Amino acid sequence: MRFSRYYVPTLKEDPAEAEVISHKLLLRGGFIRKLTSGIYSFLPMGLKVLNKIEDIIREEMNRAGAIEVLLPLVQPAELWKETGRWERYGKELLRFKDRHNRDFCLGPTHEEVITDLVRHEIRSYRQLPLNLYQIHTKFRDEIRPRFGLMRAREFVMKDGYSFDKDEEGARKSYESMFEAYNRIFKRIGLVFRAVEADTGQIGGSFSHEFMVLAETGEDTVVACRKCDYAANIEKAEVKVEDKKTNQSCPMYEIVETPNVHTAEDVAKFLNVPKSKIVKTLIYKADDSFVAALIPGDRELNETKLSNVLGVGELSLASYEDVERITGCKVGFAGPVGLNVDRIIADNTLLNSTDLVTGANKEDHHLIHVDLRRDAKIDMYADIVNIDERDLCPKCGGEIRFFKGIEVGHIFMLGTKYSKAMKATFLDENGKEKEMIMGCYGIGVSRIIAAAIEQNHDEDGMIFPPSIAPFEVVIIVLNINDQKVFDTAETIYEDLKMRGVDVILDDRDERAGFKFKDADLLGFPMQIIVGQKGLQKGVVEVKNRKTKEKKELSLDNFIEEFMAWRKDVWQMWGLDI
Amino acid sequence: MRFSRYYVPTLKEDPAEAEVISHKLLLRGGFIRKLTSGIYSFLPMGLKVLNKIEDIIREEMNRAGAIEVLLPLVQPAELWKETGRWERYGKELLRFKDRHNRDFCLGPTHEEVITDLVRHEIRSYRQLPLNLYQIHTKFRDEIRPRFGLMRAREFVMKDGYSFDKDEEGARKSYESMFEAYNRIFKRIGLVFRAVEADTGQIGGSFSHEFMVLAETGEDTVVACRKCDYAANIEKAEVKVEDKKTNQSCPMYEIVETPNVHTAEDVAKFLNVPKSKIVKTLIYKADDSFVAALIPGDRELNETKLSNVLGVGELSLASYEDVERITGCKVGFAGPVGLNVDRIIADNTLLNSTDLVTGANKEDHHLIHVDLRRDAKIDMYADIVNIDERDLCPKCGGEIRFFKGIEVGHIFMLGTKYSKAMKATFLDENGKEKEMIMGCYGIGVSRIIAAAIEQNHDEDGMIFPPSIAPFEVVIIVLNINDQKVFDTAETIYEDLKMRGVDVILDDRDERAGFKFKDADLLGFPMQIIVGQKGLQKGVVEVKNRKTKEKKELSLDNFIEEFMAWRKDVWQMWGLDI
Repeated sequence: MRFSRYYVPTLKEDPAEAEVISHKLLLRGGFIRKLTSGIYSFLPMGLKVLNKIEDIIREEMNRAGAIEVLLPLVQPAELWKETGRWERYGKELLRFKDRHNRDFCLGPTHEEVITDLVRHEIRSYRQLPLNLYQIHTKFRDEIRPRFGLMRAREFVMKDGYSFDKDEEGARKSYESMFEAYNRIFKRIGLVFRAVEADTGQIGGSFSHEFMVLAETGEDTVVACRKCDYAANIEKAEVKVEDKKTNQSCPMYEIVETPNVHTAEDVAKFLNVPKSKIVKTLIYKADDSFVAALIPGDRELNETKLSNVLGVGELSLASYEDVERITGCKVGFAGPVGLNVDRIIADNTLLNSTDLVTGANKEDHHLIHVDLRRDAKIDMYADIVNIDERDLCPKCGGEIRFFKGIEVGHIFMLGTKYSKAMKATFLDENGKEKEMIMGCYGIGVSRIIAAAIEQNHDEDGMIFPPSIAPFEVVIIVLNINDQKVFDTAETIYEDLKMRGVDVILDDRDERAGFKFKDADLLGFPMQIIVGQKGLQKGVVEVKNRKTKEKKELSLDNFIEEFMAWRKDVWQMWGLDI
Repeated sequence: MRFSRYYVPTLKEDPAEAEVISHKLLLRGGFIRKLTSGIYSFLPMGLKVLNKIEDIIREEMNRAGAIEVLLPLVQPAELWKETGRWERYGKELLRFKDRHNRDFCLGPTHEEVITDLVRHEIRSYRQLPLNLYQIHTKFRDEIRPRFGLMRAREFVMKDGYSFDKDEEGARKSYESMFEAYNRIFKRIGLVFRAVEADTGQIGGSFSHEFMVLAETGEDTVVACRKCDYAANIEKAEVKVEDKKTNQSCPMYEIVETPNVHTAEDVAKFLNVPKSKIVKTLIYKADDSFVAALIPGDRELNETKLSNVLGVGELSLASYEDVERITGCKVGFAGPVGLNVDRIIADNTLLNSTDLVTGANKEDHHLIHVDLRRDAKIDMYADIVNIDERDLCPKCGGEIRFFKGIEVGHIFMLGTKYSKAMKATFLDENGKEKEMIMGCYGIGVSRIIAAAIEQNHDEDGMIFPPSIAPFEVVIIVLNINDQKVFDTAETIYEDLKMRGVDVILDDRDERAGFKFKDADLLGFPMQIIVGQKGLQKGVVEVKNRKTKEKKELSLDNFIEEFMAWRKDVWQMWGLDI
């Protein structure tokens, strides 16, 4: 490609709308443009990266025996009603009516559509296993779309679905996808980790997320220093030792705690450890109200709470609701005598007594509370985040934390959808059985953002060669110098012939301008053709990631370049 | 690809839901499945054809200097309001609200989005021309989706948009796209014709449609036998000779015409030629009522009428409205004393007098009507279809008709969108000007249907080699015969290595079953490997289109096959 005939509208200034680095650089590099909140156009460079990622995914999915299809984006409500998700799926499911007043939605995921397709086609165990996937546009009406391609409303996703005749086959399909995902992210050139994860809206019995490691990641992952355990913090279990306490607890008393608001304040004011303060959080869970009790030094985990409650929509109750329920200003809720539908206490409170709680009265707390004696606890459960003091739930080893960006998620669905939608087959004995399903997603457009979050510096993006918009840029220092231009042109043609994806910066611009653009746009390899070098019989090359420069001989340029290129790919951990 | 590992669910029976042959065969061949009215899933074979068509389009668009982007499907109402199409575009524009109650639509076309993108990027004439295109899913909420991929609601389209600094440049861009389209449809292997067309919902000053010729086409095309004139019947002008009549006309009279309903009946009953009967058709045009007068032996052309009126929505008035307006039962409307907002008469009535019209009274007509004398005609215009009696509007030569399927449409938009949306640039003299736009569409998924409508026989589909799901099928007559299987396998590997897109039918099925499938699925070339042939030292090949069979020598198979393959491509008019 010749730069002069391409469309790469780079910007000099950081766009004000962007909060994270990938979003900034994608806008500055002319990869994407915002149409409206959470909806982006892909300009040529952005689309090129997207296509390279898609090609890698496609190759590895096909290699694993999955078969590509293309499913509709606009889906009829009837199917979603069969699984109950029409009602249960939150507002991210964008629902609307067509001209005949029939209910439809934009597909945020395709379990219903694929199960409907397969139930009409598959009759016999002989037709199984079957693994179908697509790469297509999806829509999720995020309440707060942000960070550019990281959390967009319209985005590109690879979603695949496997159908098996038994558990063993389903586990094999899952493992084969697990391996394919490892190959995919390795080939994309990213540092990533597969972790245990919550199954969320999709459901099923277990799941793994693939996390690209990056400080700016929205997800927190916990990993064991001793064993291979790794999990999303949403999922990671907090193990509670069962050490029954025989500590006695005096009868509770109400005390005045004026101008004391946070657990921290209460602990200081009453001179007790924060762990003895019970935070009482009131949630609206579907149509009921629930109180969640956790120690003052822990964080509530809403995913765990939602799973424990088995509800669809979970959100903190409004100030009005809290004041109605507790009969006082927000900040003094407590479990004693509290009138809610359910009270759930965290497991870490199991072994505690002589606690401090809100008194359901402004500026007052209760001390000497024993939850079992004084409150009506419906259930103890694991509803807090794991943190530094905890140990690995698998081996008891020490744990550590890192940030990640979720780019893939695979689920063992079991029969959740095949049961609801009657996707059955006849087994070897002529018996009707439900298919066992798996579901496998990759956030294709999000990978672009994740790659940049992981790979950038003060000058711009740095792409792994396998997904760079162009692998190599040839910078022509002065296009009006005929010898310089002809040499650059010859190199360009030679490299194209050898299958190298190369862009020739033939624009009539200053050298400094071109250097800046080349760095900003993140081409992993730069070839700099200038008069000075040619006089010395050399052409300079630069490795964008290491900033290392090297002079290759003009006479033997292509051979030397191809060898250097191999080194660059290897430095990224990539085969060529 | 090995058939046994692929997913091609062919059906034995013609599916009841399908009316046209392409729809039937696409379902029977397992290329597509219906999700709901007008919305289809592409199964692997269907997707493969789609991808091959996309690749040809992409190559030719890139060759012509157009640059690929990817634009959002979900579009904000604000942009459509700027051009007035939010109100004017009919119900095919599916409108809905997001979770924040903002208005959106599903993109049926992208003039607004691309103009919005470009107006924020282009400042100077130096950045022009620019030609951007995408290949993506579109949605049009058709009132009556039908014929499978022919008129679907969700479909795949290539849409491109050019931006130029002046008329001359815009015309060049248009011509370059016109040529690219010719190359595209030629490479796809279809018999097609470019014709002048109406600009419809998109607008602009002129346009061409690309029509795949097929008896089942929904469009009628008129072409001159003498010159190069060809046009969609929606567009083709009816030239009316200006021969002033001096014929006198008696005063009109009312006559009873009991049980006489059609123009035909009236002509017979009154013993006058059909051309003397005036049909009065009452239309609802946006919020007004209009009467259209045409001779009894002509057909009204609603596209022309709509253009003449300059309205958005045009439909025949309801029975109730007609009865209210005429004061009598439907069937007796006439222009004399008629109370509507406008009366438009066809040009062919210009030279006629002494006519018969309805009397606005049940079972009565008027005779001896002179339209100029007796009725208030607001305008004479060309509002009927051209037919056999007419002559070429360009050269006066004889014309002929054929049926076509519209697969491409290019428009000279002028400044329609750039003016409405203020997409301007500074010209050489620093003066602000509106960009001149063109717009270029291809119905990618519809091409699959059109290809089949043009190419099929009693056994199934017949694909041109350039877009066949696989170019070649190798039919293994008996997979349990080791020699047969090994030979087939060797041929399969050899052809794959030579870049031939081949599928190996390695299923454990009867030969007859495989033959039927191979014919149904339309692979242009078949290689039949069986014991008998091998004993004779030959392998049979079959040209699906001509049904010609040929024996190639086993010893020199690949060379002989590659030569024969070249012949097959040439027979389709295709280069290889």
